[in-house]
Amino acid sequence: MNSNFTLHPQLAAECIVVGDLPFARVLLNNDANYPWLILVPRKPALVDLIDLADDDQIRLLREVSGAARALKEITRYDKLNVAALGNQVPQLHVHVIARFRSDAAWPNPVWGRAPRKAYDAAACERLLDLVRKELKIAVM
Amino acid sequence: MNSNFTLHPQLAAECIVVGDLPFARVLLNNDANYPWLILVPRKPALVDLIDLADDDQIRLLREVSGAARALKEITRYDKLNVAALGNQVPQLHVHVIARFRSDAAWPNPVWGRAPRKAYDAAACERLLDLVRKELKIAVM
Repeated sequence: MNSNFTLHPQLAAECIVVGDLPFARVLLNNDANYPWLILVPRKPALVDLIDLADDDQIRLLREVSGAARALKEITRYDKLNVAALGNQVPQLHVHVIARFRSDAAWPNPVWGRAPRKAYDAAACERLLDLVRKELKIAVM
Repeated sequence: MNSNFTLHPQLAAECIVVGDLPFARVLLNNDANYPWLILVPRKPALVDLIDLADDDQIRLLREVSGAARALKEITRYDKLNVAALGNQVPQLHVHVIARFRSDAAWPNPVWGRAPRKAYDAAACERLLDLVRKELKIAVM
């Protein structure tokens, strides 16, 4: 399944790889404003959700739900945001974002609001560890 | 399944009811800037995607995909946007939006960009007819 998969360079530049679930690569968006995972199905040439066959859509949904439950467990968010937009990065990817009434964009969607704020190394490692533990992902 | 379901007043105010699929009510957002459907599972007390049981998540996904395919067939969009945000309207609902490189918000997400532009009656009826036909929804 991996053979022709390459992560889009913008996702690679802006995110840290958490690891691989059976269907999707899990990324942590390097923006400390919001705990924000991104799931990228490891198949080539996907743009829209409906480019996936029905059973693959379900596999992706299961992993998106797992990522959401992990963020809930770790952050106790106020609200979950899930979105597949891809107007700027055309590789199919799903945002799974923990939102708080106190966060930098609330109650608006996160895109285009607060300037990106990179994690400091310790906070990043801590969050990666927690997410990997929740998702049972081994360190790559 | 319908007994305790009531559409959130803001969704009722801003949208036109397309009709019911087996699981979700389908709305047309009354914003002619974008062909924009909204699916609302007809169950009470849902906020986040993961409030749904796994099998209900799949039922919702199937209907979201169907709505996306309908919009693709009708509009030949450039890009599909799918999102469950709900920071302002806490009733679980999924946006299914046909995007064009020429639209009022491209390449940004639609929220908070262009002022809402209500459909004229004829254009609205035409689009409702097409969506109902694609989704095999009878007029309510």
